[in-house]
Amino acid sequence: MSRVDLNADMGESFGPWKMGDDASLLKIITSANIACGFHAGDPDVMAQTMALAAENGVGIGAHPGFPDLQGFGRRNMKVPHDSLRNLVRYQLGAARGMAAAVGTKVRHLKLHGALANMCSADIGMARACYQGALDVDPDIIIMVLAVTKQEEAVRDLGCRWVGEIFADRAYNDDGTLVDRSLPGAVIHDPEVAGPRILNMVREGAIITESGKRLETSIDTICLHGDGPTAVQIAGSVRKHLIDGGIEVTQFLR
Amino acid sequence: MSRVDLNADMGESFGPWKMGDDASLLKIITSANIACGFHAGDPDVMAQTMALAAENGVGIGAHPGFPDLQGFGRRNMKVPHDSLRNLVRYQLGAARGMAAAVGTKVRHLKLHGALANMCSADIGMARACYQGALDVDPDIIIMVLAVTKQEEAVRDLGCRWVGEIFADRAYNDDGTLVDRSLPGAVIHDPEVAGPRILNMVREGAIITESGKRLETSIDTICLHGDGPTAVQIAGSVRKHLIDGGIEVTQFLR
Amino acid sequence: MSRVDLNADMGESFGPWKMGDDASLLKIITSANIACGFHAGDPDVMAQTMALAAENGVGIGAHPGFPDLQGFGRRNMKVPHDSLRNLVRYQLGAARGMAAAVGTKVRHLKLHGALANMCSADIGMARACYQGALDVDPDIIIMVLAVTKQEEAVRDLGCRWVGEIFADRAYNDDGTLVDRSLPGAVIHDPEVAGPRILNMVREGAIITESGKRLETSIDTICLHGDGPTAVQIAGSVRKHLIDGGIEVTQFLR
Amino acid sequence: MSRVDLNADMGESFGPWKMGDDASLLKIITSANIACGFHAGDPDVMAQTMALAAENGVGIGAHPGFPDLQGFGRRNMKVPHDSLRNLVRYQLGAARGMAAAVGTKVRHLKLHGALANMCSADIGMARACYQGALDVDPDIIIMVLAVTKQEEAVRDLGCRWVGEIFADRAYNDDGTLVDRSLPGAVIHDPEVAGPRILNMVREGAIITESGKRLETSIDTICLHGDGPTAVQIAGSVRKHLIDGGIEVTQFLR
Repeated sequence: MSRVDLNADMGESFGPWKMGDDASLLKIITSANIACGFHAGDPDVMAQTMALAAENGVGIGAHPGFPDLQGFGRRNMKVPHDSLRNLVRYQLGAARGMAAAVGTKVRHLKLHGALANMCSADIGMARACYQGALDVDPDIIIMVLAVTKQEEAVRDLGCRWVGEIFADRAYNDDGTLVDRSLPGAVIHDPEVAGPRILNMVREGAIITESGKRLETSIDTICLHGDGPTAVQIAGSVRKHLIDGGIEVTQFLR
Repeated sequence: MSRVDLNADMGESFGPWKMGDDASLLKIITSANIACGFHAGDPDVMAQTMALAAENGVGIGAHPGFPDLQGFGRRNMKVPHDSLRNLVRYQLGAARGMAAAVGTKVRHLKLHGALANMCSADIGMARACYQGALDVDPDIIIMVLAVTKQEEAVRDLGCRWVGEIFADRAYNDDGTLVDRSLPGAVIHDPEVAGPRILNMVREGAIITESGKRLETSIDTICLHGDGPTAVQIAGSVRKHLIDGGIEVTQFLR
Repeated sequence: MSRVDLNADMGESFGPWKMGDDASLLKIITSANIACGFHAGDPDVMAQTMALAAENGVGIGAHPGFPDLQGFGRRNMKVPHDSLRNLVRYQLGAARGMAAAVGTKVRHLKLHGALANMCSADIGMARACYQGALDVDPDIIIMVLAVTKQEEAVRDLGCRWVGEIFADRAYNDDGTLVDRSLPGAVIHDPEVAGPRILNMVREGAIITESGKRLETSIDTICLHGDGPTAVQIAGSVRKHLIDGGIEVTQFLR
Repeated sequence: MSRVDLNADMGESFGPWKMGDDASLLKIITSANIACGFHAGDPDVMAQTMALAAENGVGIGAHPGFPDLQGFGRRNMKVPHDSLRNLVRYQLGAARGMAAAVGTKVRHLKLHGALANMCSADIGMARACYQGALDVDPDIIIMVLAVTKQEEAVRDLGCRWVGEIFADRAYNDDGTLVDRSLPGAVIHDPEVAGPRILNMVREGAIITESGKRLETSIDTICLHGDGPTAVQIAGSVRKHLIDGGIEVTQFLR
């Protein structure tokens, strides 16, 4: 039977400020990408989120980002490669420490926000970040945006990795995302999102807006925790996959 | 033969700002307490300092502090015990990640600044911090200020620990430090500091200003990196210990 | 006719994180205490909040706090008086700049969180903070917790000030607040809060739990924006005051 | 008689970390660009630096930068124009508050580091920043890098401004700086720097490496505080200007 993992970002609260509905998403997903304190999350939030993920049997990932709390790690920053490598090492180390403290483990790493976006287009940046992660844990599984420079980087590095596609975003024929400003770029209707993802998983390929097939390793589906229909989309994707005979479970590598 | 360790705080630069003469101190000391990014240090500084310490055969310790860069972790903060525990977990985790990345290990932990001072007087705080460290690494060696609540806390916890005295501070009969505002509180003369510490190590006791003996475990001597005669004091202490037949080497536990 | 002002803290969002229902409260209050970026608020949030307050005809105050975003300025910090003075100067300056930029003015200042609490009990700290505000604007109106060291400090300084009481907190006979852990310390019922405050404003005195009268200058009532019944309490207080013949309007000094 | 101003960045210490030799430079320069706490400087450093500048009769400028302490504001960040405008408003406001508190005034504004570099090439960014400054103080004098988009922006805005050239950098024929990696890009020899600047001021034009004249408004010369010969270059420039009959004094507008 085919299998696929469902992942979502979480642990994005900070101090007194709450974000997201982690408890609900943890019932749906199989892997959690947990913020590491640079763009969101703080040591208390990390401890609570990791403990909750572990209780739900959800795999734990470090989700490092730029050191930019106000911008939520969504503003591009030009950081030298050595510093990128060190900031990933630091955040992954912190996440591993916190995971050990609550009796669990970090098994994967996924880049956040602008750092992820820049690494999708810049293989040198992607390699610096992923090398930083591998320096800390050579067995870590890197979660990459399929069909981007992120994927090229992990192939070059020869490390363990899984490929990810978005549940709610339309794709261009070159594998990039359709610009958010264009109609249809973001899928809001749960009844559209579910069958669409089932189809891609069955095909083993991204189906672009034009209908083109981009074969890739669809190991995990990225679900979002924000937006008015986010939890419904997540639930719909999960249901359609299971009803379609796909096993929804943590990725293995 | 008797043995003792020499420790100093380092890695206290941040971004473009330099602090301390780490390279010189690393020739003298046997254990380095390395800032973890909350009161000083950043991922780049941590990586460089740990690599340099490892090259010099110096043991590496995590040196967590309050999240207060402007105050250099020297301003008391009232932080709930759970948060203290988490902030130590986070900083130790980050340090362990960085150490692994540069091919070395964190073997001890020492609290910094106001966090250390408050824990010297408050056993509950000390326990929360040390428990956080043990949650991440049950084998970590905790470096405590001898004859303070820090020492009581590690005895209660039953963990591995070493006791520390200051090379350049006079002691009261209750084991507290003579207030800095009083004459003789701080020893500036290297020719005084060296023989004084040799004597205490031989005696296995702090000798207070009044001449009283406070028996304790003198496993390591804290040297400072700042101040006009800091490096000379450090050198003098090392020389007097060696000339006096004491082996200067990393503590074992 | 008697008059009184209603104030509330706002502008406490930060970056992507929202806090409070500023738009609703601005319909009820007459003075807004706006966070200045150290414990909450950022330049974007400040600009938006000040513009919205000005549109609603609500008086604008700077609400400086400790530099502690994670702790939301609620954790006591031991900061030297000179630094306190400078951090108030800085935050008030920033608030004045932002107010000028959106075409309005800062007319009052109120301390936030742990900084306010510590200044309620420590006249030296209160004087340092208020002196910092007066250094920037000698005409600023200082909003103080009535019958505390804050009030003593402004009386000593001889500056313009207004006295504040809480809409939803019970008072001890010495003017301190009943500890939150005790029953009745916090008033949750809007139908209790409204008449109670009307009575105090008419009496020109805090009425303590035991029934004792503490005469003071009740110029403004502090309303909270959080809590399940916060907006209802705010509305009830406003309604009872107006129905009771009290003019609800910005304080004058 | 011709006149010119000499400016330098200062107040770039932070907390326990010192940077630059502000006291020496203040004997040489006529205008100081003082960091505002986002990339360097803190409220204590700002107060001390402004007081010292005022004592030396040196004109005070706000020197806002990106919110990036670790990167010292030297890392490009992609910040929306509205946020740029607000972060300049905030920092200028803070600087004005601090200046008022120590009995002086902010008369000019100059952008720092990566923010300045990006605004040299992007007129939209420059306009957003300068508009933010003018929102707070319509009379502020904007210090721009001559012959860049910064200059175009102030011309468009119709505000008060002065043009700046570097004492120690070679220029390309299009007015950009020769890349630091090329020979001769940075002038280290005080005996070269002095006559070179005197010549440009007399000519009223940047003289490029190739000898081309770029006519512009040379109102102020930027001197650096760091580098092995920085203070000597500063002194040499000042001496050669004065000996050459140029009045070294604060710019007027």
